[in-house]
Amino acid sequence: MTTTTDTSTAAAQNSLPPITDDEIFSGHEGGKLSAELTRPLETQRDLSIAYTPGVAKVCTAIRDEPELARTHTWTGRLVAVVSDGSAVLGLGDIGAKASLPVMEGKCALFKRFSGLDAIPIVLDTNDSDEIVETLVRMAPTFGAVNLEDISAPRCFEIEDRVKAALDIPVMHDDQHGTAVVVLAALMNALRMVEKSFDAIKVVLSGAGAAGVAVAKILGDAGVNDVIVLDSKGIIDSDRGDLTPTKEWLATNTNPRGITGGIDTALAGADVFIGVSGGTIDEAHLPQMADDAVIFGLSNPTPEITPDIAEKYASVVATGRSDFPNQINNVLAFPGIFRGALDAGATDITDAMKLAAARAIADLVGEDLAPDYIVPGALDARVAPAVADAVESAANADGVARG
Amino acid sequence: MTTTTDTSTAAAQNSLPPITDDEIFSGHEGGKLSAELTRPLETQRDLSIAYTPGVAKVCTAIRDEPELARTHTWTGRLVAVVSDGSAVLGLGDIGAKASLPVMEGKCALFKRFSGLDAIPIVLDTNDSDEIVETLVRMAPTFGAVNLEDISAPRCFEIEDRVKAALDIPVMHDDQHGTAVVVLAALMNALRMVEKSFDAIKVVLSGAGAAGVAVAKILGDAGVNDVIVLDSKGIIDSDRGDLTPTKEWLATNTNPRGITGGIDTALAGADVFIGVSGGTIDEAHLPQMADDAVIFGLSNPTPEITPDIAEKYASVVATGRSDFPNQINNVLAFPGIFRGALDAGATDITDAMKLAAARAIADLVGEDLAPDYIVPGALDARVAPAVADAVESAANADGVARG
Repeated sequence: MTTTTDTSTAAAQNSLPPITDDEIFSGHEGGKLSAELTRPLETQRDLSIAYTPGVAKVCTAIRDEPELARTHTWTGRLVAVVSDGSAVLGLGDIGAKASLPVMEGKCALFKRFSGLDAIPIVLDTNDSDEIVETLVRMAPTFGAVNLEDISAPRCFEIEDRVKAALDIPVMHDDQHGTAVVVLAALMNALRMVEKSFDAIKVVLSGAGAAGVAVAKILGDAGVNDVIVLDSKGIIDSDRGDLTPTKEWLATNTNPRGITGGIDTALAGADVFIGVSGGTIDEAHLPQMADDAVIFGLSNPTPEITPDIAEKYASVVATGRSDFPNQINNVLAFPGIFRGALDAGATDITDAMKLAAARAIADLVGEDLAPDYIVPGALDARVAPAVADAVESAANADGVARG
Repeated sequence: MTTTTDTSTAAAQNSLPPITDDEIFSGHEGGKLSAELTRPLETQRDLSIAYTPGVAKVCTAIRDEPELARTHTWTGRLVAVVSDGSAVLGLGDIGAKASLPVMEGKCALFKRFSGLDAIPIVLDTNDSDEIVETLVRMAPTFGAVNLEDISAPRCFEIEDRVKAALDIPVMHDDQHGTAVVVLAALMNALRMVEKSFDAIKVVLSGAGAAGVAVAKILGDAGVNDVIVLDSKGIIDSDRGDLTPTKEWLATNTNPRGITGGIDTALAGADVFIGVSGGTIDEAHLPQMADDAVIFGLSNPTPEITPDIAEKYASVVATGRSDFPNQINNVLAFPGIFRGALDAGATDITDAMKLAAARAIADLVGEDLAPDYIVPGALDARVAPAVADAVESAANADGVARG
């Protein structure tokens, strides 16, 4: 890793020729991962230690004291990146096999940013019971589970059930990785505009995996007034079409009980966060509060493009690497899992996620500016700082085994 | 890999101090495997190729043409080493987690000898239905399945069902890896004593995973007279206590229909093969035929130790690295899976196993001697030769996708 803080991504990338299909496909030939040995295996003596007869002593020790598997197998730092391929990027339900390049890429990011080992596990079923059951059966294989690209609303139930069934770190990154980085960015955006969490009105467009998790973490961070919209408008208790998750949102957000669409929602709003995949008409924006904050996070087309957003907001962020303030999950998940595994955590708790957000936000420090509210995706300081904060939070929260 | 033919294992090992527990445990700290990147992931451009947005092109291509997963993900060379931990080494049913060091070691051998990637998948269930179902659900994750250390008789049914359900190479190594190397050794042993497969009488002690597979491959190789014994004696059709697998043995072996114990079986036998875990009293041996062959393969104690066996046999082999003629699965499985994956084989057929045995035997060539009937475990020529032979056999057998 380098120690450069890369805040000039857009300029650097714009000066390079566009990425070609040839470059992409040759960059995937043979896949992006390999399994390697941690030690030489050259002599008969090496073989007798790593395999029979020597290995039997280690097996017996783990049989008698299962915790030794964390220190004497690779599972102590092994994350399973698990998907059923049902909600992959903007591609939707492309199935397990076609999702593999994304999962390999995710595993590569784990190694690159946190030093953790990660392997893709893709499942040829969309049945929640079967997914949970399969992971429970496989559980001794890995040390943590990163659920990835599983469609809502199944992702909520699956994550809840896998977390309850396994005593290891489990996290659906599309939910909580996104939520943690959004919170980090919002901490610094509010610092820029001198507003406080408990005083702001937030409009959140999108009630899928990311939207639900963002709504929850904003509540945990002290935001009192969040309005969430799905494709049918503001989520409120009077709607008769709500899934259990949206029922939860109806009960726990929208304290003013307003109804209607985005226009109603944005009146006087301090913050807009888009994780919807849709777009917002510019005509709705002038009614936002002064010093507004706009995060249009859908990829590749933000809900509100920066050139428009900047006319109505003091701080603007997107999910794209070619604009400033990229809200990128890679700032969160490598450090969260590294910290959780280093702590021997039995869970990833809300306190650990808040600690991760705070650690990301804090790295910006005195360099805070409208176009620098989160560290760049390649900033090598981030994962270690997040890991330290998450490990401490795990210890404080009583979920660490040390 | 070196190109040294190591036939001096025993001498080399005996000159070194014994392996200590400290050496074994420190050799396992942090585990024996790591997941690594095949390419640098340093710049924003690297990220945009390996992950979003570039990766979407590869996902879409695989969705439209699933075969591309073989060339554009790591699954084209990825073996899942799958166990339920029910029959691990001499330790028995120690469970999934405690079996991990063996499975990591097996994966390390795959990398070391064949260059294939391999990952341990250990399952916290001994139920055959659940094991098959789990592997079917996970199937897009890997390119081949090496079943390992699953107890008999479940291993037979599980292998049959997984082979039938998946269109990729599947092999239970405790059965077929052992059988292939036994056959290779026997080819050269018979060359030494100038006997032919169709004329010999073979006594096979042990009707577990290895015994059943050895009996089958001997039949495939043209041996007409095999007598198999389990702990209760010779397996014959009149016994009322036979499992389905042993019923098969009763029907397909013991052509003279003899009954009784090891003493009856060994009268006039040309070959004894032990894969039983037990021992044979020396008193039974004088009645074997002239120029007998004795393979006592149980570890760590051979059925007949070499010092005794040499009194009654012209060729002697064991499963141990500290005696000549080690019958070691590592001669077979790396090359078998490498050849099968290189061929894009949809199965591992009997013809592919026979080709593997022939390739191993052929490497001995003119150096054939009573104490050199198989190459040494570290002989770097073996895996490539086996892979080539297996790939050719897959093509000839019509199971290759190229």
